[in-house]
Amino acid sequence: MNAITLKDNQLSLSNLSKPTLAADEVLIKISIAGICSTDLEIVKGYVPGFSGVLGHEFVGTVEAAGDAVEDPDWVGKRVTATINIGCRSCPTCMDAGVEHCPSRTVLGIHNRDGAFAEYIAVPEANLIEIPADVPDDLAVFTEPLAAALRIREQLRVPPSQKIAVVGPGRLGMLVGWVLSLAGNEVVMLGRRKASLALGQQWGLVTGLIEEAADNGFDFVVETTGNEAGLAHALRITRPRGTIVLKSTYAGPANVDLTKLVVAELNVIGSRCGPFEPAVRLLQTQAANQIVEMIDGRYALSDGLQAMKQAAEPGIRKILLTT
Amino acid sequence: MNAITLKDNQLSLSNLSKPTLAADEVLIKISIAGICSTDLEIVKGYVPGFSGVLGHEFVGTVEAAGDAVEDPDWVGKRVTATINIGCRSCPTCMDAGVEHCPSRTVLGIHNRDGAFAEYIAVPEANLIEIPADVPDDLAVFTEPLAAALRIREQLRVPPSQKIAVVGPGRLGMLVGWVLSLAGNEVVMLGRRKASLALGQQWGLVTGLIEEAADNGFDFVVETTGNEAGLAHALRITRPRGTIVLKSTYAGPANVDLTKLVVAELNVIGSRCGPFEPAVRLLQTQAANQIVEMIDGRYALSDGLQAMKQAAEPGIRKILLTT
Repeated sequence: MNAITLKDNQLSLSNLSKPTLAADEVLIKISIAGICSTDLEIVKGYVPGFSGVLGHEFVGTVEAAGDAVEDPDWVGKRVTATINIGCRSCPTCMDAGVEHCPSRTVLGIHNRDGAFAEYIAVPEANLIEIPADVPDDLAVFTEPLAAALRIREQLRVPPSQKIAVVGPGRLGMLVGWVLSLAGNEVVMLGRRKASLALGQQWGLVTGLIEEAADNGFDFVVETTGNEAGLAHALRITRPRGTIVLKSTYAGPANVDLTKLVVAELNVIGSRCGPFEPAVRLLQTQAANQIVEMIDGRYALSDGLQAMKQAAEPGIRKILLTT
Repeated sequence: MNAITLKDNQLSLSNLSKPTLAADEVLIKISIAGICSTDLEIVKGYVPGFSGVLGHEFVGTVEAAGDAVEDPDWVGKRVTATINIGCRSCPTCMDAGVEHCPSRTVLGIHNRDGAFAEYIAVPEANLIEIPADVPDDLAVFTEPLAAALRIREQLRVPPSQKIAVVGPGRLGMLVGWVLSLAGNEVVMLGRRKASLALGQQWGLVTGLIEEAADNGFDFVVETTGNEAGLAHALRITRPRGTIVLKSTYAGPANVDLTKLVVAELNVIGSRCGPFEPAVRLLQTQAANQIVEMIDGRYALSDGLQAMKQAAEPGIRKILLTT
């Protein structure tokens, strides 16, 4: 099968054999996969030593099940899957969750092949059924939408708080939309005017980050993953306000800890989120606008070109189809 | 009167006239003042452009009251004072508190003379009476003890959580003690064995920071104010754990944001705390051990030498007496 693989930091289109199944795994024929910023960071070396098939956002159909799979009815179903595979028995799995298991593997990110391929093997425990009323073009957004919803799992977001999302990109747009759903005023902040058009189209307030007022926001989500974005986030958060780091940071960054301490800010890292609520949201009428984030669609065999386009400024979601 | 002043980053023993009182202020004859790390950072240039009398930890007696002081009975009372003077009318004062007022002054820290002097002028609203059963040597710790208690104002600290305090110094010891009071296991972590003796004397668990296990603590308080201390704090905090930044950071620092995001840590800045609970704690038998932190006592006229000793490694509290 075709697959986009990374080996010795070299991205390639490879011809691999179909994955072999562990007893508790199913084989999924992938329909669509999405490229996200983490994939691009991995290629740049964010996860040192990652080697294998990239990709962790996908939708597909179960084709076969291992001997120990408990529910044979998975075969034939349209699914996506949560991306962390923990041991499910250590204290960290019990307490912080499988997303933090020290011996976890993560689809296309850590020690496990991902979804930029024709097939993927996934444990039954990770499967999430996609309802018939959610088309593939929306279902492929389940993972990043869950990541956006993670913020609401971690923190109370009072509806009267003024929210800024720094970075109106592929994840930032989903974060802004999710945080606007319960009545909050959400301002999408970008570096260039062109980046603000989609936010306006979605009915969100938009603004240039350079022009955002000091201490002007109660709750700020940083989605750019770069030092300049973080510096702006610190600048625009009011005393005792909250900053959510919702991005991938490659290595150490310079942070103004003086503001963090003097203004008693709360900074919280945020990663993978809940899939079932994401699927429920995708079933709503309002979610249909998400497809407006799709900026390109490539056959898997053109995956290298797709990765290149995904890395261009202003590009949001690029899809790979099989 | 004698005073330790800073002007153009130059520390001096100055001969000033007694402070003149605003209508809502009282004049306090200072008995003892304490040197803290913030004073040392200010001298190093942490607050650019600070000019005036240093010092914000003190105990003294009210000698006179301005015309608009509402309670004339303050005169003759032994007091300390909260250090932030806000406008008490702006939205930030109403919401985040006077400690965050954009036009605030802060005793000995920002646009207002402090307590390394024979007299200080303080608004009536800032006064805190010291009960007769709290001697001056303990009363002078009210401000830093309040700063330690601030952590419990900001965050829930479940008694079963394992806590580490990075830095067994003048503030770290108070933080460790306060956090141990409700049954938590608190480990004081230092760079040198000698720094751990007082923690052992106080019945706390102690350890060398280099030997502390990765991800070994639920709740970590960073009190060193340096990058190395913060790097250790990030290293030893478990996934979804909490780090409190309880120190003065001079400018930007390199922070490993990857761990912060991937492990979904919660980092919170922490500054000034509640004085009344601190005074109540100082009335307890257990608080008597705090005087063991006093490493030196100087006449105000020897204040420059006192500042020098306070900056030496391993030194905790240095007092100035008038």
